[in-house]
Amino acid sequence: MTTVAAYAAPAAKAPLERTTIERRAVREFDVLIDIKFAGICHSDIHQVREGWGEAIFPMVPGHEIAGVVSEVGPGVTKYKVGDRVGVGCMVDSCRECDNCKAGQEQHCVRGAVQTYNGIGRDGEPTYGGYATHIVVDENFVVRIPEGLSLDVAAPLLCAGITTYAPLKQWGAGPGKKVAVVGLGGLGHVGVKIAHALGAEVTVLSQSLRKKDDGLKLGADHYYATSDPKTFEELAGSFDLIVSTVSAPLDLGAYLGLLRTGGALVNVGVPEEPVVFHPFSLIGGNKILAGSMIGGIPETQEMLDFCAGHGIGAEIELITASEINEAYDRVTAGDVRYRFVIDTATI
Amino acid sequence: MTTVAAYAAPAAKAPLERTTIERRAVREFDVLIDIKFAGICHSDIHQVREGWGEAIFPMVPGHEIAGVVSEVGPGVTKYKVGDRVGVGCMVDSCRECDNCKAGQEQHCVRGAVQTYNGIGRDGEPTYGGYATHIVVDENFVVRIPEGLSLDVAAPLLCAGITTYAPLKQWGAGPGKKVAVVGLGGLGHVGVKIAHALGAEVTVLSQSLRKKDDGLKLGADHYYATSDPKTFEELAGSFDLIVSTVSAPLDLGAYLGLLRTGGALVNVGVPEEPVVFHPFSLIGGNKILAGSMIGGIPETQEMLDFCAGHGIGAEIELITASEINEAYDRVTAGDVRYRFVIDTATI
Repeated sequence: MTTVAAYAAPAAKAPLERTTIERRAVREFDVLIDIKFAGICHSDIHQVREGWGEAIFPMVPGHEIAGVVSEVGPGVTKYKVGDRVGVGCMVDSCRECDNCKAGQEQHCVRGAVQTYNGIGRDGEPTYGGYATHIVVDENFVVRIPEGLSLDVAAPLLCAGITTYAPLKQWGAGPGKKVAVVGLGGLGHVGVKIAHALGAEVTVLSQSLRKKDDGLKLGADHYYATSDPKTFEELAGSFDLIVSTVSAPLDLGAYLGLLRTGGALVNVGVPEEPVVFHPFSLIGGNKILAGSMIGGIPETQEMLDFCAGHGIGAEIELITASEINEAYDRVTAGDVRYRFVIDTATI
Repeated sequence: MTTVAAYAAPAAKAPLERTTIERRAVREFDVLIDIKFAGICHSDIHQVREGWGEAIFPMVPGHEIAGVVSEVGPGVTKYKVGDRVGVGCMVDSCRECDNCKAGQEQHCVRGAVQTYNGIGRDGEPTYGGYATHIVVDENFVVRIPEGLSLDVAAPLLCAGITTYAPLKQWGAGPGKKVAVVGLGGLGHVGVKIAHALGAEVTVLSQSLRKKDDGLKLGADHYYATSDPKTFEELAGSFDLIVSTVSAPLDLGAYLGLLRTGGALVNVGVPEEPVVFHPFSLIGGNKILAGSMIGGIPETQEMLDFCAGHGIGAEIELITASEINEAYDRVTAGDVRYRFVIDTATI
């Protein structure tokens, strides 16, 4: 066991404060990572504030982790001391079910072990990336390619894979018209990836406030969803819409923007149910789908893709003491586009 | 113009009665069909009773038409007098849009011309298959292969293609577990086709009343959806669920029956909107889709497939004078499994 510095919420809805936690001793297949940067994902806030239900406290959030390997267990073959690595939303799974074997560990039938606010297979609670170090089985560690800075890479471990997976699955690429709903932490990475995949990219945002940014990030078009004309003008035009917002969508209206056979994929998690008429799917053979992060192999593929296309997140680097303020700013939508904690300041 | 005998509803919700209608003179690319059989689809009743909105009267319903070619226009190349042919839900489309060119005429961006309760491109109302003859452009006529009797072939023109298209699109086949929701006019054909495609087929029906039939039709398993244990026992088990019912489904419950990445495809048209929580799609990367009949090439493919596998509808053959009684029985769910009108009795 090693005592390491961390930022934790001692109880639900409480501000985060500096503390220490114990990391397990490095086991045979473990990697000890000297964390350099940790992104702040909106789901960190949902969980600290118990917006998704009861959580485990004290909570050290953080599932967008980038760092350097500082120790490896005797059985480790994939990484060596000094390697640049990342950890995303999960740190273990059963490894035996069909989904695990297919590299879809996030859909492990026994439940993947969340990086924080989870219980490991050893029965111990898990603590995330707002800390100086973390110990993770090598099979749940990914390599951050040279050329991709660790600070802008960190958010890719959640925001990157969450948008990359549905863009790939649903065929974003040359000749395809793709819309990204919401230009926030997820959406701004989604725009970069969709553009790099060769698609014609449209941002559908509440307002035109971030239009200049959106176009710089790679969007070809930018529309305000608060303007009803948007839904007339763009009717029937997209092959794929990836919605990154957690506010409930008017599904009928967005399905109306799809071409025949098009897909609307939701990666944001609304807290409320939605109402829609099934006929909006039948007319035009349309598809409504969900997508939840991605498996470990695909996360590596995403990082390699992003490195190859010079894609990192747009970040605001903060010190650990600014975490609570950052949470309020994320909740207010006041971040361009991801806060990343410099963990040297913990 | 030719005067032909037909059964028509003179006004909304009125009983159907014998009448005569005018069929257009055979044009260059037209085929005159001597109708032998016409299936009664639940949507005929919806339209006669204006359940889907205002309709055109008098209405001659019928879009499950099987007959024999009795005259061809001078430009017709695909059919000759004596050919056994069918007509389904549409008789024309713009033929110029991307969907038409792709053989997805049912999704014509200008709107396909419905076989009845529609307005043709010549501005004239269309009249369906409850008649002795119909005149249709050869491009909207399909061939009924030898070996497939016309009476059991007729319902395939709607019920067959409606279930075949989503089963094919979403990969029903060997090694796949497919559920068909509802064992009615659509569902019973869906079971036969899914079985012939090589899938392991489960019927999910309100009760076990038709279980013996279901198993004979090719289902491997049969469960009652009125029993809550069904949803526990079958959780996470299907690759594909095709819902043929028009009653609103508890989508969350049915999505829970899908495996990771599985699809629930709706082909029944509920009159009411549905409520569900998007998280039921995100957890497990699930898919909710719609499917509306199929294009002309796929309708031909379906008929060839059915003929090759000895698949026809299970029918109750009726005389034209029994149409109104049949409507009441369909509404009451009292038909095994499709009424077909012997048009010689009109």
